[in-house]
Amino acid sequence: MRFAMIGTAFMGTAHSHALHDAAAFFPDLPVRPVKRVLIGRREARAREMAERWGWEEWATDWREAVRRPDVDAVIVGTPNHLHHPMCLAALEAGKHVLCEKPLATTASLADDLAAAAARAGVCHGVAFNYRRVPAVVLARRLIEEGRLGTIRLYRGTYLQDWLLDPSLPVTWRLRVDEAGSGALGDILSHAIDLARYLVGEIAEVVSDLTTFVAERPAPDGGRASVTVDDRAAVLVRFIGGAVGSLEATRFATGRKCANGFEIFGERGSVRFDLERFNELEYYTQDDAPEARGYRRILVTEREHPYLRAWWPPGHTIGWEHTFVHQIHDFVAAAAGGRAFAPDFVEGAACQRVLDAAMRSHASGAWTAVPGPGGAARG
Amino acid sequence: MRFAMIGTAFMGTAHSHALHDAAAFFPDLPVRPVKRVLIGRREARAREMAERWGWEEWATDWREAVRRPDVDAVIVGTPNHLHHPMCLAALEAGKHVLCEKPLATTASLADDLAAAAARAGVCHGVAFNYRRVPAVVLARRLIEEGRLGTIRLYRGTYLQDWLLDPSLPVTWRLRVDEAGSGALGDILSHAIDLARYLVGEIAEVVSDLTTFVAERPAPDGGRASVTVDDRAAVLVRFIGGAVGSLEATRFATGRKCANGFEIFGERGSVRFDLERFNELEYYTQDDAPEARGYRRILVTEREHPYLRAWWPPGHTIGWEHTFVHQIHDFVAAAAGGRAFAPDFVEGAACQRVLDAAMRSHASGAWTAVPGPGGAARG
Amino acid sequence: MRFAMIGTAFMGTAHSHALHDAAAFFPDLPVRPVKRVLIGRREARAREMAERWGWEEWATDWREAVRRPDVDAVIVGTPNHLHHPMCLAALEAGKHVLCEKPLATTASLADDLAAAAARAGVCHGVAFNYRRVPAVVLARRLIEEGRLGTIRLYRGTYLQDWLLDPSLPVTWRLRVDEAGSGALGDILSHAIDLARYLVGEIAEVVSDLTTFVAERPAPDGGRASVTVDDRAAVLVRFIGGAVGSLEATRFATGRKCANGFEIFGERGSVRFDLERFNELEYYTQDDAPEARGYRRILVTEREHPYLRAWWPPGHTIGWEHTFVHQIHDFVAAAAGGRAFAPDFVEGAACQRVLDAAMRSHASGAWTAVPGPGGAARG
Amino acid sequence: MRFAMIGTAFMGTAHSHALHDAAAFFPDLPVRPVKRVLIGRREARAREMAERWGWEEWATDWREAVRRPDVDAVIVGTPNHLHHPMCLAALEAGKHVLCEKPLATTASLADDLAAAAARAGVCHGVAFNYRRVPAVVLARRLIEEGRLGTIRLYRGTYLQDWLLDPSLPVTWRLRVDEAGSGALGDILSHAIDLARYLVGEIAEVVSDLTTFVAERPAPDGGRASVTVDDRAAVLVRFIGGAVGSLEATRFATGRKCANGFEIFGERGSVRFDLERFNELEYYTQDDAPEARGYRRILVTEREHPYLRAWWPPGHTIGWEHTFVHQIHDFVAAAAGGRAFAPDFVEGAACQRVLDAAMRSHASGAWTAVPGPGGAARG
Repeated sequence: MRFAMIGTAFMGTAHSHALHDAAAFFPDLPVRPVKRVLIGRREARAREMAERWGWEEWATDWREAVRRPDVDAVIVGTPNHLHHPMCLAALEAGKHVLCEKPLATTASLADDLAAAAARAGVCHGVAFNYRRVPAVVLARRLIEEGRLGTIRLYRGTYLQDWLLDPSLPVTWRLRVDEAGSGALGDILSHAIDLARYLVGEIAEVVSDLTTFVAERPAPDGGRASVTVDDRAAVLVRFIGGAVGSLEATRFATGRKCANGFEIFGERGSVRFDLERFNELEYYTQDDAPEARGYRRILVTEREHPYLRAWWPPGHTIGWEHTFVHQIHDFVAAAAGGRAFAPDFVEGAACQRVLDAAMRSHASGAWTAVPGPGGAARG
Repeated sequence: MRFAMIGTAFMGTAHSHALHDAAAFFPDLPVRPVKRVLIGRREARAREMAERWGWEEWATDWREAVRRPDVDAVIVGTPNHLHHPMCLAALEAGKHVLCEKPLATTASLADDLAAAAARAGVCHGVAFNYRRVPAVVLARRLIEEGRLGTIRLYRGTYLQDWLLDPSLPVTWRLRVDEAGSGALGDILSHAIDLARYLVGEIAEVVSDLTTFVAERPAPDGGRASVTVDDRAAVLVRFIGGAVGSLEATRFATGRKCANGFEIFGERGSVRFDLERFNELEYYTQDDAPEARGYRRILVTEREHPYLRAWWPPGHTIGWEHTFVHQIHDFVAAAAGGRAFAPDFVEGAACQRVLDAAMRSHASGAWTAVPGPGGAARG
Repeated sequence: MRFAMIGTAFMGTAHSHALHDAAAFFPDLPVRPVKRVLIGRREARAREMAERWGWEEWATDWREAVRRPDVDAVIVGTPNHLHHPMCLAALEAGKHVLCEKPLATTASLADDLAAAAARAGVCHGVAFNYRRVPAVVLARRLIEEGRLGTIRLYRGTYLQDWLLDPSLPVTWRLRVDEAGSGALGDILSHAIDLARYLVGEIAEVVSDLTTFVAERPAPDGGRASVTVDDRAAVLVRFIGGAVGSLEATRFATGRKCANGFEIFGERGSVRFDLERFNELEYYTQDDAPEARGYRRILVTEREHPYLRAWWPPGHTIGWEHTFVHQIHDFVAAAAGGRAFAPDFVEGAACQRVLDAAMRSHASGAWTAVPGPGGAARG
Repeated sequence: MRFAMIGTAFMGTAHSHALHDAAAFFPDLPVRPVKRVLIGRREARAREMAERWGWEEWATDWREAVRRPDVDAVIVGTPNHLHHPMCLAALEAGKHVLCEKPLATTASLADDLAAAAARAGVCHGVAFNYRRVPAVVLARRLIEEGRLGTIRLYRGTYLQDWLLDPSLPVTWRLRVDEAGSGALGDILSHAIDLARYLVGEIAEVVSDLTTFVAERPAPDGGRASVTVDDRAAVLVRFIGGAVGSLEATRFATGRKCANGFEIFGERGSVRFDLERFNELEYYTQDDAPEARGYRRILVTEREHPYLRAWWPPGHTIGWEHTFVHQIHDFVAAAAGGRAFAPDFVEGAACQRVLDAAMRSHASGAWTAVPGPGGAARG
């Protein structure tokens, strides 16, 4: 499966590495991913990165590259506002597409992409990579096996602090036209995706969005406004009856990548914090009363999701491995003619929650999350 | 200072113990608290408990007892709906009053008590005992010293699971007429008080209240409705500009007494969980970049709040000690003619947040927290 | 049961408090402990403390006091070298005796006390209070129930740092004639007692004793030698076949009261650290392979040892409660004509391990721990 | 730099991956490592692995392969008894050599290799990969900067449980002729290397070696004796005056890869556990008394060792990254004509500690660790 990838920054590196390791560590993969062409705006950067990572070619014109007949699949790892045109072009060229999150800058554009993906009949996916943390997959397994009973309460967070310094300049992530939103789309989107993955569809939300630092240096001198939120909090009600709260910020002094959750069911609960990547905490009422307690499961056993491919127990893995698992699953799905989850339909569903959160913040009231195309759901 | 106490259950024991230990461990106390009379509805229970705990007398008629000339101070440790008449009677008799939380079942009754307390000119306090956890006081000190910089984000919880079993019968805590509310008044009130203590006054809230088990066995056979919430979540905006979220439930499977907070400021942050009573986590940007991290402060040093009275470093104390500190501070305040914090004015302020949360849940929208007597604060 | 207590310092406070709380919190106690007479060298101190803690009388002549006909039981809470004469006098007067640890300054003196106790036919105990931490008792229960299988490996520590400051003066604890040894007898004795309690008798040891700060200010000016160890480490072999290591020091910068253990058996393991008093970690191979992990048991449930007397789940207790449990068990044993564990026989057994460790350090070789009176055991 | 590697099992995978990632993630590397030839006993296995990992060739005759003129460096990743002949051949052929630990099965063979390496004038290293955990390197930095003051006490462990199941058959790791020793050489060697890296040279030891399961299934049916230790514990005295204890076992039920240490100095301390790969705990007396506590440093900042090559803060890495760092450093050293640490001289020094531990176990007494060639050091 010959890949083109657009994007040469953080995500470009993560996916390049994943394309290599997925092939090497997972001999069960039916086809080998090939790093055909890397596309970047600046040629020097694209070339340097292509050579470093073993891409066969590099290019600067993404429109041309995504149409190449020697490309089977496209990874889109660019700023959010470019996802829509790039994915659309790739889909129209009949390529499989794996797009970075959030899928688009608005629910309407996301819905449009979901429709285009359906028309194209290819494999499509959104890179909510945290669905591929072994501990997270284990949490879902425990839930599916009924070990928590009916889920009642979900508490999700994504706390970082990399925007603390007010002298950091404005980048695309801080501009609403390019990013769509701030902490909301960047990281609360992950929290929403995990909530949807682990509990189910969200029916309605009430939100609060806050901008702590409203002005920053402009990249080219002078000052520029921050036009997105720095912190997003939502209370949520799931369609299935559970309730919850989600909060994300890039100003949580001391927390670096605290993408976590606590899930409480009738019979048990689980807890996770990405800063302790290899651990899942699990509590069950089934244990004898005097011996109940949260188990710190070190998720590095052969019985654990994806771990058979890696190292002996206790030999930890890390963040980048989520991308390896993602590429593995995407290639396996595309090669096997199966759907990848989350696909663009799910990506759009997440986007509609983001949109509802923005509308709720504007109105100050609980807001229903609509179905595809804005249709009422219930 | 001669005490009368109404209540012979959980809180009665906690206060009885505190009256003993405050005198024994704090020789600086200007007057010694005397356990004059214990009041309980059922004589046998009152007598047994009085003998066990060294109360000089017991009684069953609280109206008479709170007026006794040989009583200087009254502790009210009864179900919530009794706080108002009992406190009122004690205040009118000119006694110092320490009342269990929440102060009343409605903001209006709480405001009434605050007014009565002001008229009485005595010492009055609400037993939000978690203000006397040494780690919590230390957190406040760090904040007051400016070590966290301006506070931006507050995340509070109070998670328990003692109502999980649906065969537990309805008690006064599950009836709106006696309790006022459920998790909201019982434990979210603690979270609100700590938020107010550590950050400041709350301006507005949006809330969600959930009842997971709507019907339970009635104490006398048959079934009875649960008429309060089992879980309360609020997003809050503080007057000073900080924002936050608070959540409380008695259905958090696996969490026993997780009264905790995370507070993020411009320069640092602190974290606390009551299940690890003797620990405070503290992070500061002032540490060298390569050596930054949350410090697990074992709050058992002589330099720590209240600890000089207790044991050598590392020799932990526990939940009951908050009551000892509370009695110590109350007796010292009353004897010295000083105010105790939180007093009834603060108790009423907390109650207005609870009321606003209930109104928000009904309206589905952000709701301003009024000032005393329901006045707009804006 | 009328108590005399010798000692007005740290241990005196702990026992005074325990005598009060044991009666108040444990209504099942067949007799009520009475604080008859407190004995201290300095009258002013004894008087102040007696008044503060409700001792009926105070005295300065311990020889006379322990013989009083209105005294049934004696607590010895003085420097180590006084344990032998005081216990001997109390035993000869037919009193029940609870002595602080270590029982004596040498194995020979401890054996002598054990013999005297047997002759006296009273209840005798050594205040190894950590046998009364609920989490420790729970650990023993799990072991007794076979949940760990055969024990193979024991790792014990007692790490403190209160001697770090070299300007602290020499006290009795740093003089071999008064203390017998340093970290060895003061705190490794606790680790040895727990090892014996949880695994069984120790057959042989090899040790290392280290003095980090050999000279300190003398209390009366000038300099004085430290004549005891600052750190003691031993490798041990248990009679039952298990092996282990124990280490104690008062120079473990950052550790305040890290009295802990890890116990590994064929089927499971447990871990404990006194700094997290209310927690026991437990791992079992019986859990499903994908869900194995150390459970953090919050040892505050009604099902847990001693907890029925205290507070609801999650409402933690602390260090002082071990003394309350100890008094409870001692009074119950003495009143019921039963033995208390650990008694003087066990105290002497512990002392023989301490002696063997000192001899091993001198010889540089593995050293057998003898039986009572120095008899070979094997 | 063209590599040959002997070994196609666990270590072969780890090094293959490292050769790829070192080039991709570290563009500062002066030369690119090339995967020239992979050598395995069984051709099918060698071929499969070579194809999977991008080795240009594969071979079965290591004697021939290590002499090839198109090979610059050799990695030896085979059972312990093969290290000596293979390293010797590679050194004699003038190749740089990176050998798995322990360097040999006896100190004498290790000394021999160290001498051969000195004669060869090439770059030589022993793959004690845990020196390349960022948290461990940070610990060393803190020590070198004097932040802990003089080190007094070192406590090291390496606890695993993968041998728990008595039905696991005997492999080379359980045969003294092939492995040299059991837990001692396999994992206590890591603990010794870290102790030497972080504190310094060890002067003398006293040890205990235990075999818990003495007989297991033979690979070809029947039963076979386990001829190595299952657990090794040593008390150590460092030349510099510090003291310590080290313990390793593969029977620590519940611990998977607990390679850890606690280091106590006059002014501070650090703690590490490989199961929490990305964390270092650090305590300093320099903090204000009321705010002292172990800092959990999340070692994922750009300021941290090796981290500039990886991901943003909080995006964790794992066990395999130690091999990437190791290859990076080895290639950089070899290309730059510099020594790699630990080299064969250090590998032999470690081996002499292992030998001393074995002799101490036999004699039951403290045993001096000799210098190179068995020379007395003191």
